[in-house]
Amino acid sequence: MTSATKVPVEGAAISAPEELKSGSLNTKIYNAIKQRILSNRLRPGTKLVHEQLANELRVSRTPVREALERLYSEGYIVHILRRGFFVAEIDETEARELYELREALEVFALRKVFETTETWPMEHIRALNGQYRVAIDSLGTRDRMLTDRDFHLGLARLAGNGRVVDTLASIFDRVILKRRVEGYLPTRGPEAYKEHIALIEALADHDAASSEAILRGHIRSAWGRLHEHLQVLADHDPDDLD
Amino acid sequence: MTSATKVPVEGAAISAPEELKSGSLNTKIYNAIKQRILSNRLRPGTKLVHEQLANELRVSRTPVREALERLYSEGYIVHILRRGFFVAEIDETEARELYELREALEVFALRKVFETTETWPMEHIRALNGQYRVAIDSLGTRDRMLTDRDFHLGLARLAGNGRVVDTLASIFDRVILKRRVEGYLPTRGPEAYKEHIALIEALADHDAASSEAILRGHIRSAWGRLHEHLQVLADHDPDDLD
Repeated sequence: MTSATKVPVEGAAISAPEELKSGSLNTKIYNAIKQRILSNRLRPGTKLVHEQLANELRVSRTPVREALERLYSEGYIVHILRRGFFVAEIDETEARELYELREALEVFALRKVFETTETWPMEHIRALNGQYRVAIDSLGTRDRMLTDRDFHLGLARLAGNGRVVDTLASIFDRVILKRRVEGYLPTRGPEAYKEHIALIEALADHDAASSEAILRGHIRSAWGRLHEHLQVLADHDPDDLD
Repeated sequence: MTSATKVPVEGAAISAPEELKSGSLNTKIYNAIKQRILSNRLRPGTKLVHEQLANELRVSRTPVREALERLYSEGYIVHILRRGFFVAEIDETEARELYELREALEVFALRKVFETTETWPMEHIRALNGQYRVAIDSLGTRDRMLTDRDFHLGLARLAGNGRVVDTLASIFDRVILKRRVEGYLPTRGPEAYKEHIALIEALADHDAASSEAILRGHIRSAWGRLHEHLQVLADHDPDDLD
């Protein structure tokens, strides 16, 4: 089995083969359902019915079953005994762990930029926060959160570690897409904007200690608000429990 | 599509359904090939041939193609134009990014334990390092590295954040399993053991600052050695390049 051929590391083009560009039926169905989850057409808590999905996607139940297995193994959906498959919803433990991980990675990225550059690209950072200000005024809660994600990913990207950015992006996706935003207080948007402004001022002053303290405080405030919200949801959803 | 049913968060047992326990043919073949990669029966750089895999696993080429697509999308294998599929091998950028991420997460976990507990479970930690000492004397390079992983994951686990432990575990898997260890100097084992001992002494003294400095130094030494090794491999493998 272990043929001696080695990967030519440089020189050869690494590319997606034709069969992956088009994708098999199973992969297409997997992508279609995942896309509905990530775009929130299928919201957290929604029940997934094989037959219904098969009808909508105009395929047999086999590729749907394959796709649900894969989404289950990746944590996008859960299975409840005698109830079936549901789009996964965030719980308090997962949310706390994700916010801690987010703080560790964002602080790492912030320090890395301070260690390696003399000045931050302030115009770029202010533009990202400008987009966030627009989002507070005009967008729904979830879209506002996605714009906040862009601000934070934009900062982290300056540290030059793609894997940290990818990991952060998947944290934001989970925190944003796996939660219900109904009833979430809209005041968090303006608060977060002010905290961004304070962070931007500290970056412009090249003040590493203040920047780090503000960033940590900002992430912990966000977690505090989400934590409260998850408790409100738990208190008001007694009908959902067996 | 969006049925109003909500996931019953508590009270109902969340479990793998029967179909996932057994798994479809595609999932079984996917797991079989992935297991060969993770157990290093299929080593980094090995060419993967559909027909050969289908014969070995006694299935048609269709589930093999499905499995390779999925492993490709997850980064376990690469595709090179007109050459085919190969078990992915680590490159310098990926390795550097993973070591930086590892440092960020291990330092986060260390600080968290110092913040939340008065004493470290020293007996447990010394036992983990005792296993590492045995591994230096008796095991091959890759198994020695897997024992080192157990030491570091054991420390990180004390911070009580499962997601950080999972992310670290996947970093170690990538760093260890995606590299060729042929020609890697065995002296790193005893060095790493001494660095573990220094860390353990600082933990026993409940000295947070020293512990963090030693841990950072330890991870950076490991990266330095790997970095050298990757350059030696690159210098000595001119035949692999087109």
